[in-house]
Amino acid sequence: MNETIRTAEILCVGTELLLGDITNTNAAFLSRRLAELGIGVYHQSVVGDHPGRLRDALHLALSRADLVITSGGLGPTYDDITREVVADALGLDLLLDESILTGIRDYFARTGRVMTDNNRRQAMVPRGATVLPNEQGTAPGLMVRDAARGKTVILLPGPPRELKPMFDHYAMPYLRERTDCVLISKNVHIFGMGESAVEDILRDMMEKGQNPTVAPYCQAGEVRLRVTAKASNEQSAKVMCDETIERIRNSAVGPCIYAVTDARDGDYSLETAVIGALLEAGKTVATAESCTGGLIAKRLTDIPGSSAVVKGGFVTYTNEMKIALLGVCPETIAQYTELSEQTAREMARGARVRTGADIAVSTTGLAGPGGGTDACPVGTVFVGVSREDGEEVVRLTLSPDRSREYIRTLAASHALSRILKCLV
Amino acid sequence: MNETIRTAEILCVGTELLLGDITNTNAAFLSRRLAELGIGVYHQSVVGDHPGRLRDALHLALSRADLVITSGGLGPTYDDITREVVADALGLDLLLDESILTGIRDYFARTGRVMTDNNRRQAMVPRGATVLPNEQGTAPGLMVRDAARGKTVILLPGPPRELKPMFDHYAMPYLRERTDCVLISKNVHIFGMGESAVEDILRDMMEKGQNPTVAPYCQAGEVRLRVTAKASNEQSAKVMCDETIERIRNSAVGPCIYAVTDARDGDYSLETAVIGALLEAGKTVATAESCTGGLIAKRLTDIPGSSAVVKGGFVTYTNEMKIALLGVCPETIAQYTELSEQTAREMARGARVRTGADIAVSTTGLAGPGGGTDACPVGTVFVGVSREDGEEVVRLTLSPDRSREYIRTLAASHALSRILKCLV
Repeated sequence: MNETIRTAEILCVGTELLLGDITNTNAAFLSRRLAELGIGVYHQSVVGDHPGRLRDALHLALSRADLVITSGGLGPTYDDITREVVADALGLDLLLDESILTGIRDYFARTGRVMTDNNRRQAMVPRGATVLPNEQGTAPGLMVRDAARGKTVILLPGPPRELKPMFDHYAMPYLRERTDCVLISKNVHIFGMGESAVEDILRDMMEKGQNPTVAPYCQAGEVRLRVTAKASNEQSAKVMCDETIERIRNSAVGPCIYAVTDARDGDYSLETAVIGALLEAGKTVATAESCTGGLIAKRLTDIPGSSAVVKGGFVTYTNEMKIALLGVCPETIAQYTELSEQTAREMARGARVRTGADIAVSTTGLAGPGGGTDACPVGTVFVGVSREDGEEVVRLTLSPDRSREYIRTLAASHALSRILKCLV
Repeated sequence: MNETIRTAEILCVGTELLLGDITNTNAAFLSRRLAELGIGVYHQSVVGDHPGRLRDALHLALSRADLVITSGGLGPTYDDITREVVADALGLDLLLDESILTGIRDYFARTGRVMTDNNRRQAMVPRGATVLPNEQGTAPGLMVRDAARGKTVILLPGPPRELKPMFDHYAMPYLRERTDCVLISKNVHIFGMGESAVEDILRDMMEKGQNPTVAPYCQAGEVRLRVTAKASNEQSAKVMCDETIERIRNSAVGPCIYAVTDARDGDYSLETAVIGALLEAGKTVATAESCTGGLIAKRLTDIPGSSAVVKGGFVTYTNEMKIALLGVCPETIAQYTELSEQTAREMARGARVRTGADIAVSTTGLAGPGGGTDACPVGTVFVGVSREDGEEVVRLTLSPDRSREYIRTLAASHALSRILKCLV
């Protein structure tokens, strides 16, 4: 019978974090994973590459939690001190692990570099520790158990591209066996309704202390609801989660839901949904972008496999290019200006006809800063859609106080959402 | 005479941080600012919206540092507890500040919403505290001084768009008067040379404990060197900084430097440099993108003012579109395939001729995952440039182990760097 791990602390080591040179994405990643496991995290801390302060922080964390996860300080240089400080704090010798040493030698041989002597330090292992393989670098992770005190310490390397697969592949299975409940999380993806409207509608489900919990996350015009159910077994948690999602679907929020995904599947966005829907429908898409300047095409082609359904795109910042590349009538621009429903419509039509795509979207508007007028303030964006069987344009009025980046992102999201609406 | 502040701790409050729902960008931002001031940060911590744990963390931080900066927990809801816990820890009453209350009432009236009673809490101020105006929301910040113990606590709101301007406009001037030295930081932006090559060349300048310090930061193929000089006055620090930069310019790294910027100016990137250089030269640019799928155009148009110099762009994912939109010869693709120097050349030429731009760049390659062959593995990208007086193509061989995002970003950066080379 394994001991249950109920609480954890995250202790990130690195002077570069204290200087603000890098943002601590490891703490967020690890916290998310621990939340999935139902392990409570009440503290995150950061200390520099300083033995005394690391030792104190480690002792404090061990006094408060069943599990301490460190990141950073496992490399070969003299300021990588985590391995030594943890071994010392737990009263364990460091022993040379020949198989790690061989692995490091192989890594250097393979990459055609010379292994310097300080790399041997990465092969030192506290007595009794489990070694976690590093698929992306030389420094292995370590898992140390102090049975007498009922504490576990997991040491992970600092670089996120090393830490994340190591944790998922080697630490998660270990921890999963040591929790006393199962959590299932799903994400409900919403576009076209603001966070406060969503909260108003779902207030009763979002009150604290319920099971499942429903938590809203808001990002550039999108709302994601995370529904998490906790139960003694997976089947019960799944049923609870699905019931809550069904209630959300049947609420006034329902029509704005564009996807429900497993929270473990990671990033999912409007563009993922659009590419998936295009592939399923066997349709193709094209873009004609003025104010978004390539962002819609970029987001679509971020998705692997998009080449099968993205026909082509145009960035037409100037009126001259709208006319030359998309065939917008000069008279339309002269009569209505480039910031008009008419121009957006002709841009989308031009992109569809010239690429032969099934659906084309267009944007023309003012992302700022500067350039706005009373009739057409910064934040005004026309989003056009053209299909063989019809065309439509929506006028967005986004707050001129928002950044250029926000206005462009939201305009692109609206365009993506229009493509999706053509497909469902 | 003001007391000198030498050390600070950052204490972020919010259960959403402990759940990993948001990444702690505030800690990085505040650390960076404190480093600029020469104030040492030895700990960052995060606790949830829990009075007992916040109180303990605050006492610990106050026992170690001259200054504690908190973020989060200043809002109107019951789980916003920072104001109360700090006042209690410092033994100060909370008093209603009528002018804040009026400000909050005005904010609600202006945005057409109803002010609920719990918003009054945001107008409570610890006795003697300085109020920091919130230009982006309702919750003001607070600055509390405990003269007897020589400690200062600055309370900031959690949302970064409220915290950042508040800190820069109202806390920085206060802190600047309470440091005993001046730090000047400049960024040296490098593209086209890897981090380890830069380190090899500049090793002597990068050793620890020197003044100025030279610290490298690496991101998607770019290297940024931060040069920081510390002196008793601004003039001396500036001279020291400039001398070190001159030494870097004269080293083998020199030819790869594309910009030197003031670190306080914030984000600066290849696209900023390109748009600046185009504006200065009075030249225009166009793009023809296959594997980057709009990313080059997107990055160029991220920069305000780009509309004056970005003529237009094409996203041509399919061969059909490369032929139809850019006028690539079908024979070229038949003979050399779309992944070839020849196709990249004709794509760039087509974009330049069809838009009338002075310079056009193109990309065609494999961003993966999947689709690679022995002759043309994932990570192979051809970057073409066309000007009236000549054309050239470079073949990039990026590691197929890197992500689709990395390969696309690096290919776009190479294209931007090629534009820059045409202009200097």
